[in-house]
Amino acid sequence: MRTRRSVIDLDDLTASEMTYIFERTADFEHEKPDRLLDDVACVNMFFENSTRTMTSFALAEQRLGANAITLWPKESSLQKGETIEDTAITLAAMGINVLVIRHSEEGYPRRVALAFDGHVINAGDGTHAHPTQGLLDIYTMRQEFGELSGRRIAIVGDILHSRVAHSNIAGLRSFGAEITLVGPPAFLPDDYAQPHVKIERDLDPILGDVDAIMLLRIQRERFADMPISDEEYIARYRLDSRRLKRMRPEAIIMHPGPYHRGVELDDSVLDYAGWRYASQVMHGVRVRMALLDFLVNGAPALVA
Amino acid sequence: MRTRRSVIDLDDLTASEMTYIFERTADFEHEKPDRLLDDVACVNMFFENSTRTMTSFALAEQRLGANAITLWPKESSLQKGETIEDTAITLAAMGINVLVIRHSEEGYPRRVALAFDGHVINAGDGTHAHPTQGLLDIYTMRQEFGELSGRRIAIVGDILHSRVAHSNIAGLRSFGAEITLVGPPAFLPDDYAQPHVKIERDLDPILGDVDAIMLLRIQRERFADMPISDEEYIARYRLDSRRLKRMRPEAIIMHPGPYHRGVELDDSVLDYAGWRYASQVMHGVRVRMALLDFLVNGAPALVA
Amino acid sequence: MRTRRSVIDLDDLTASEMTYIFERTADFEHEKPDRLLDDVACVNMFFENSTRTMTSFALAEQRLGANAITLWPKESSLQKGETIEDTAITLAAMGINVLVIRHSEEGYPRRVALAFDGHVINAGDGTHAHPTQGLLDIYTMRQEFGELSGRRIAIVGDILHSRVAHSNIAGLRSFGAEITLVGPPAFLPDDYAQPHVKIERDLDPILGDVDAIMLLRIQRERFADMPISDEEYIARYRLDSRRLKRMRPEAIIMHPGPYHRGVELDDSVLDYAGWRYASQVMHGVRVRMALLDFLVNGAPALVA
Repeated sequence: MRTRRSVIDLDDLTASEMTYIFERTADFEHEKPDRLLDDVACVNMFFENSTRTMTSFALAEQRLGANAITLWPKESSLQKGETIEDTAITLAAMGINVLVIRHSEEGYPRRVALAFDGHVINAGDGTHAHPTQGLLDIYTMRQEFGELSGRRIAIVGDILHSRVAHSNIAGLRSFGAEITLVGPPAFLPDDYAQPHVKIERDLDPILGDVDAIMLLRIQRERFADMPISDEEYIARYRLDSRRLKRMRPEAIIMHPGPYHRGVELDDSVLDYAGWRYASQVMHGVRVRMALLDFLVNGAPALVA
Repeated sequence: MRTRRSVIDLDDLTASEMTYIFERTADFEHEKPDRLLDDVACVNMFFENSTRTMTSFALAEQRLGANAITLWPKESSLQKGETIEDTAITLAAMGINVLVIRHSEEGYPRRVALAFDGHVINAGDGTHAHPTQGLLDIYTMRQEFGELSGRRIAIVGDILHSRVAHSNIAGLRSFGAEITLVGPPAFLPDDYAQPHVKIERDLDPILGDVDAIMLLRIQRERFADMPISDEEYIARYRLDSRRLKRMRPEAIIMHPGPYHRGVELDDSVLDYAGWRYASQVMHGVRVRMALLDFLVNGAPALVA
Repeated sequence: MRTRRSVIDLDDLTASEMTYIFERTADFEHEKPDRLLDDVACVNMFFENSTRTMTSFALAEQRLGANAITLWPKESSLQKGETIEDTAITLAAMGINVLVIRHSEEGYPRRVALAFDGHVINAGDGTHAHPTQGLLDIYTMRQEFGELSGRRIAIVGDILHSRVAHSNIAGLRSFGAEITLVGPPAFLPDDYAQPHVKIERDLDPILGDVDAIMLLRIQRERFADMPISDEEYIARYRLDSRRLKRMRPEAIIMHPGPYHRGVELDDSVLDYAGWRYASQVMHGVRVRMALLDFLVNGAPALVA
């Protein structure tokens, strides 16, 4: 049934497609694109709570002139015995072109994409992937560094449960970055190691080597018991004023948000010249506009 | 107080008014009507959960250029001691022109319509009526057969609790169709029989005679105990490959959705050439656009 | 961080600013302003349930051509450990220009305004303030009386728990009105008395003296035990046909809604020539449009 492109994770896009999306993102700083998605209907289905991602998608859709409808379905009542696949078929028949889906279950948006004759964008599925966050993170780094080939990027903390980390790893590898994952074994199993992705157990040894650090929130809602004491986590992984001093002066710090002051960072990070949180959020709306434009209107400059 | 037309069930519209609405529905396949409801404000109040009907109305309103606001009120908090009639008066004073209402209580939209100085559209009230579903079903049949006078339409299953069946019966009678209701007594009391509406207890005897079959979901949320075993229901009423073979080749099958695979139909129905579910859904948005246009802008071609 | 104007209560606006807003409100009876908030993004965060205020803001935003997004956040899930201040910073970085906030906690919108680099409009915070309701009430009175200086306005009932009363007192004092608050001590402590604001314990003595009476709903959800019996409240404060006869013929009656028939008023009030409830509601959308226009686009006619 599925005939159109969906983005479930960043390996659904080639490096040149992502590059095209980033060029469009930059265009949208100046371009007023309010008819690009004229008569295109987007449904945002958020099975998990969301403030920033939902707002960002809804704003992106409205800015492009799409018809935007947001649902907060409850699993049980959605269905009345109907499968999500049948719901997807129904929404396609209704003329819905784009489904943005957030769900606590890994793989759920993929199932929808297999049934939906339109574009599915994964807005976060459990611990699996969050590709639009990955896109805005990579866009933020490219704004800073240009080409990412050979750039050293550290991702720190609860990698295992972080869909943001997973999508960044997939995307950054496409651009030839050198990724260092940092965390304790319970948050970072050994099998994350692969070509261009190495593992470190402590933050201090790599601080002086990296161009960018991405901090993560511990995803406490995704596991039962904290496998490491707060004290130890803070001692080994929290970015604070002492550690900031050991970073390269031009290095930047990112966070997908929401951040926990006092856990993965202290307030000195929020005042650091290289703190890019606000830029990430700002880019989020435009990256999503560019992705929607790419999926619906295609990329004239690219040979498929 | 009420001065404007509302549609609580299909007997609120004459056959010529429905015909006008169907002509407009066909126009909207080609016409780009994005200013027809310019400055018209629609509030969608869904007291019961809904995905497809809510999305269909919201999309119809946005496509016509209306201001569309969707509320999921909780009965208790809506009121703070206020009656729904007073809420309706308030929304009219605010300049709201159209109220689309779904509620589990039969008659609730009618109560609102009596108080509201604007147009009320019933989007489903308990087991009573669902007129826009009826309109899209009848539109689908007219697309297939042209005039419906004398056409033989079967509606199968839980008639008693189905607001969809009730609205279809009302609408189809206006167009002179011959209706056969099929189901066990607990789902189809004898008093449904009337001129042009006959009752059958089993599906098999009528399969070869009908132009269209409308299957219904058993509305398990609307009664306590299932009055017939699943096995017996399936044996007597499920449309399956064996029964499909006995239908006339040009006959069509419809379902208001969501459908239960394995209960009222099996997967062979979904592959049947005459399965019209997707057409029904597709027509749903345009029929609702046409109804909104008719209520707000009137029908220039009709003498009232 | 905060650099732009917010309106948490009516003392955030001068009398000349309110006058400008009222002039714009009157303009909007005729002006079609659908591009005044072009590319302006408004997020409505309703932590408390709302039908009329939410609908009124959403309609005002859409009529001005803004991008309007409505959230019903649950406190716990909003945060994932994030403070509302950090959420506000994030929304500003995303390009959100206006935050409309309703919350059960007094002072909550003020906290947000201190963090948010944009405009915050308080849509009601606990028992504290509801400035846009105050604006529409004062606009309604100015439509009736022109200048309010020296006009005698009574506010009757549960003053203590009424954010509407508090905002009206603040606004009416700016315009030089003479305010009489009427209620029992449990709803009207002695310290409400101040210059141009006097206290009365019974309604009957002042009925013949006032130009306008504003009735209030008893805010039963904001305190534990009713401090006065229903019978006594009705006997001393309910406006009914007997008391209506003692009012000046040109006096008007207002209510912020929702109203309790039989408690603070009886049905004869709803038929009274001076009952202005529908006008208040109607003005509500346009007053909010004018406030949004003032905050975002400024007041060319005013020297700051």
